[in-house]
Amino acid sequence: MPTPPSDDSPGPPGLVTLVGAGPGAPDLITLRGLRAIRTAQVLLYDALVAPELVAEANPAALKLAVGKRGYCVGSTKQEHINDLLVGYARAGRSVCRLKGGDPCIFGRGGEEAEVLVAAGIPFEFVPGVTAALGAAASARIPLTHREVGQSVTFATGHHDPDSPECQLDFDALSKMTTVVFYMAVRHVEKIAARLVQAGRAGSTPVAIVTDATTPRERVLVATLDDVAALMAEAGLASPALVVVGAVVAYRELFSRATAAEVSR
Amino acid sequence: MPTPPSDDSPGPPGLVTLVGAGPGAPDLITLRGLRAIRTAQVLLYDALVAPELVAEANPAALKLAVGKRGYCVGSTKQEHINDLLVGYARAGRSVCRLKGGDPCIFGRGGEEAEVLVAAGIPFEFVPGVTAALGAAASARIPLTHREVGQSVTFATGHHDPDSPECQLDFDALSKMTTVVFYMAVRHVEKIAARLVQAGRAGSTPVAIVTDATTPRERVLVATLDDVAALMAEAGLASPALVVVGAVVAYRELFSRATAAEVSR
Repeated sequence: MPTPPSDDSPGPPGLVTLVGAGPGAPDLITLRGLRAIRTAQVLLYDALVAPELVAEANPAALKLAVGKRGYCVGSTKQEHINDLLVGYARAGRSVCRLKGGDPCIFGRGGEEAEVLVAAGIPFEFVPGVTAALGAAASARIPLTHREVGQSVTFATGHHDPDSPECQLDFDALSKMTTVVFYMAVRHVEKIAARLVQAGRAGSTPVAIVTDATTPRERVLVATLDDVAALMAEAGLASPALVVVGAVVAYRELFSRATAAEVSR
Repeated sequence: MPTPPSDDSPGPPGLVTLVGAGPGAPDLITLRGLRAIRTAQVLLYDALVAPELVAEANPAALKLAVGKRGYCVGSTKQEHINDLLVGYARAGRSVCRLKGGDPCIFGRGGEEAEVLVAAGIPFEFVPGVTAALGAAASARIPLTHREVGQSVTFATGHHDPDSPECQLDFDALSKMTTVVFYMAVRHVEKIAARLVQAGRAGSTPVAIVTDATTPRERVLVATLDDVAALMAEAGLASPALVVVGAVVAYRELFSRATAAEVSR
């Protein structure tokens, strides 16, 4: 890992933009996000960000890969990212911190903003298409629907439901019509079991979407009862989203249109 | 309203893209969304879409404003939109259906896709930054946070909680850490009261964000107890989002950075 510059610059600090790169496909970034990449003097980017976006940086910009694949950033690593953000901004450089998805949805954008505020560094959030929205569009699952989904919940599946770090209320979650779990590959079996224990039908449709919106995208449709077994069988891995709810059933209906397209 | 063309074209139907225009600011559309606007032969756009985006259409394209401000599309109006989508696609035209936010989050994207599938017309969803993400970035409210928000729920506030159309489970919603209500201006008083009745603290922070990410954006911070009174006093109107949860408190912290920026 690189070392941040010393912070003895006498000038004003640079602006840090905390930018959402979108769900995976490089053309799913916003225009504002792309401009932030192109104009920054320093680009700090996560491993899940498309290389095409990193290539949009100014040739004179410093480009640093930070973060670990699968969102499993350890605290030490996060501290180093914080040091780089603060260090380059204090040295007067404009910094683009490019993250997968949206910076305010499981992107640690809030945590990094806290560090910047504490250091007196100006920042802006640039929103992005969060992974669930990309997966929904790509896998053709409407996350809300007038009849079967008047709400949608995004929840982190990163923690073991039995561990104290997990603060999810599975009783309440089991009653929400549509729930999308982020980073849920490792704990999908326990998550599904907890929802069923809390009263959700085992026959509730589930979709797992991996590498959403990229050429590697895979979609598996299952139920709460068999999702863990089918996932293991299919060998699906991170990064993955698990969508739970009746809206998943629309995928089959909407895929008929895909077949019609193919036959044209 | 215009009349759709007759559907006696012998050729294959045109592709319909159901495109999310993003939360309001024109530069918060995705690159893919902008390309869909520029390449379509027919553009059907909602009233909330930025005029700058409509202006990106091909000069030869047919541009039709559809939909009513405030998402209050009546069923007759929706049927007419459906007829236009199907009619132009059957006539072999490529159609871009441009919607505020994301097509799969309270955008009726699923309902329009159903109509297209039934008519044998190929379609694609192009995701967008949904209003809650735009408002969060702009108002500096991290919707998730490692410590105070392991989930975020988007719910429609369009229906009167006492009416049979409202299928929200307020007991479950009251236990979700962060909830964003869309289209909630009219029913905010009843919604807040139902959450408190279900056990949520009346002191829970609430933010109302109107016209998020546009030059007209306004943000009001309140609590569940006083939000309805403060909103009426401030004269806030649609389109508005109501964010409920401890994460709202970060706005004050993060706005100090804004003040620092201004003083530079």
